[in-house]
Amino acid sequence: MPETRKILIVVMDGLGDRAIKQLHWKTPLQSAVRPNLNWYAEHGSSGIVDVIGPGIRPGSDTSHLSILGYDPYEVYTGRGPIEAAGIGLVGKKGDVAFRCNFATVDGKMVVTDRRAGRIKEPDTTELVKAFDGLTIDGVEAVVKEATEHRAVLLLRGPGLSAKVSDADPHGSSKVHDVLPLEPEAKKTAKIVNAFVKRSYSILNDHPVNLHRASLGLPVANILLPRGAGMFPEIEPFEDKWDMTGACVAGVSLIKGIGRICGLEIIEVPGATGGLDTDMIAKAKAAIHQLESKDFVLMNIKAADIASHDGDPVKKVEVIERLDEMAGFMRQNLPEDVVVAFVADHCTPIEMQDHSGDPVPLTIYCEGMVRDTGATFDEAAASQGGLGRLRGKDIMPILYDKAGRSEKFGA
Amino acid sequence: MPETRKILIVVMDGLGDRAIKQLHWKTPLQSAVRPNLNWYAEHGSSGIVDVIGPGIRPGSDTSHLSILGYDPYEVYTGRGPIEAAGIGLVGKKGDVAFRCNFATVDGKMVVTDRRAGRIKEPDTTELVKAFDGLTIDGVEAVVKEATEHRAVLLLRGPGLSAKVSDADPHGSSKVHDVLPLEPEAKKTAKIVNAFVKRSYSILNDHPVNLHRASLGLPVANILLPRGAGMFPEIEPFEDKWDMTGACVAGVSLIKGIGRICGLEIIEVPGATGGLDTDMIAKAKAAIHQLESKDFVLMNIKAADIASHDGDPVKKVEVIERLDEMAGFMRQNLPEDVVVAFVADHCTPIEMQDHSGDPVPLTIYCEGMVRDTGATFDEAAASQGGLGRLRGKDIMPILYDKAGRSEKFGA
Repeated sequence: MPETRKILIVVMDGLGDRAIKQLHWKTPLQSAVRPNLNWYAEHGSSGIVDVIGPGIRPGSDTSHLSILGYDPYEVYTGRGPIEAAGIGLVGKKGDVAFRCNFATVDGKMVVTDRRAGRIKEPDTTELVKAFDGLTIDGVEAVVKEATEHRAVLLLRGPGLSAKVSDADPHGSSKVHDVLPLEPEAKKTAKIVNAFVKRSYSILNDHPVNLHRASLGLPVANILLPRGAGMFPEIEPFEDKWDMTGACVAGVSLIKGIGRICGLEIIEVPGATGGLDTDMIAKAKAAIHQLESKDFVLMNIKAADIASHDGDPVKKVEVIERLDEMAGFMRQNLPEDVVVAFVADHCTPIEMQDHSGDPVPLTIYCEGMVRDTGATFDEAAASQGGLGRLRGKDIMPILYDKAGRSEKFGA
Repeated sequence: MPETRKILIVVMDGLGDRAIKQLHWKTPLQSAVRPNLNWYAEHGSSGIVDVIGPGIRPGSDTSHLSILGYDPYEVYTGRGPIEAAGIGLVGKKGDVAFRCNFATVDGKMVVTDRRAGRIKEPDTTELVKAFDGLTIDGVEAVVKEATEHRAVLLLRGPGLSAKVSDADPHGSSKVHDVLPLEPEAKKTAKIVNAFVKRSYSILNDHPVNLHRASLGLPVANILLPRGAGMFPEIEPFEDKWDMTGACVAGVSLIKGIGRICGLEIIEVPGATGGLDTDMIAKAKAAIHQLESKDFVLMNIKAADIASHDGDPVKKVEVIERLDEMAGFMRQNLPEDVVVAFVADHCTPIEMQDHSGDPVPLTIYCEGMVRDTGATFDEAAASQGGLGRLRGKDIMPILYDKAGRSEKFGA
């Protein structure tokens, strides 16, 4: 073998499923034509993985942290910081991030449209400029637009806490007063309440909104923070594993995980994070990255979307496209790469949401001891040579296959 | 799937075994005709479970705690409190419980019959009344009769400790002085020694004993405490899992576990906890409970008894009756129930006692990914899709299958 190998983890988001009546009690993966994934299973070694733990339902954020070798129970502090990092706003330890909606309120601060008519760029891009340089009681308040009506608020200053309630009433009622959920959060709650009021005074008469009103569109005259999270202190991936790394992902949440771990985020034209994503373009980008980087994490979201839509036929189609992508890898991946095909969690069609079922995993590189499995699916993987693992075991195993691990003892 | 499912755990006590020459090197489970258990294995998913840990020999108490999702290393404090709870004496944290024997001593306090001629109710029921309202140095001493010559002593008061030795000499010698096993246990040791003396003075001339003596029966003129245990502080099952729950069990120890965890104990006529128990009556009771409860734990003791008796043929017969019970469940269990068939531990015939071997597990509900296994036994389960689990993993997995688990992350 070469002195060291490189590592590619291909996360097929929400891939795993349960037996579905419409598919004659097979899973979508079992139903899909998948010669290439099967080739990897036949020539590699498979197993099933409790990404967090048996029966624990992972989020896509906690699961990717686990797959990257971090303990999500230690480093995960909530969705706010991940979303912020997803749009390029990476804070430091002590910063508090919130997800926000641009919304419409009436004069009595009652929410009349929680998404301000699904406002999007360039309007949102223009509106956030009005927040440039904003500070409240000595705390910086940075606002950045996200997808559609969404934005992120990052607070930076001494003595902040993430233990505050949401301003967003999640419905058509009055904007909520943000409450401290611990005594140390009084200051933060006060600042967030001040920020919400300030956002109204900044936005209500903003030229963009005056223009929207003239067109009969709902104005985006308030920002409603929710989901506060303290930025975690995460050991950079390069320090933790002594490898340079990149992340190829379409969706913001996964880009956020990559950024927070210090992976370089590769923007791929055609990688939409949707059902229409260009999987081959992503595979090409990953393979290109492996020319200069030691490690690449890839995420393809499409199977998860089909599951959230509750559409087994669409999921089978997506999996067949994933298989074509695996075929492209078979043809084009250099020999010195250890590749792992895995899911971040199951998203059973019957639940239309993540479940705690274990996910299938296949690892391939030259010299794998072949197990008996010749197909890649939930049942075959459970018979595989890797047995039943935890998410946090994946990186050490790949690292060792890559000839990079240190001996413990003599 | 329905929004949430209910959960039934069927514990076949002591079911697992080893290869037995008399059964042509099969296990009793492998030797039994078991079409219904096999049906569940074929349509569900199987695995093997280290109920406590690999090679660790579980008690029936520690194993049931583990199966209910508790860590027995945290909450198990000894058999005394479980036995007490088994006969309805549920103490609070700080109370210390002892198992006791009614025994016969001579004038020099030498035990001449450790079971007082296997005295039983109504004699024991009558004798314990003489202890009503007893206090020693401000500590309440509650005595309650148990099966045959057994009783329970519960001490309630400040500053008690369970770190004391046994008064019961476990043989034909002088009643032991109870010794403190830590400095903080001096008070408790003194109280127990006083209790033992007091029991002699209360019992020796008790009319019941005078009557027994007149019949030539051994008198029950002393109570010998052993197996001290502090009542643990256990989070009630309903709080821990946010489910209402019931326990269908014949033997006192399992009822004790159920009571200590706050499960409702269902008394089933014909459920003796013995070889002659009415298994169908228990299944009916469990199914009836599932109409109103979210969770039912069932224990059937019979296979364990056959093992303790060292009788493989009897064990095979018991298993065939368990299979009939499983057949009744196949016909009568509602569709919205996740059911698990498992043992609390193996009781190999060759040991006539519990072993640390893993136990077989099969989980069934609609939508299970089918593994290759089509039979329910120790070997087939080891090839199953669930792999090798720990006892504490069972509840989270069932909970997730029931659609009740919370997502960790986004």
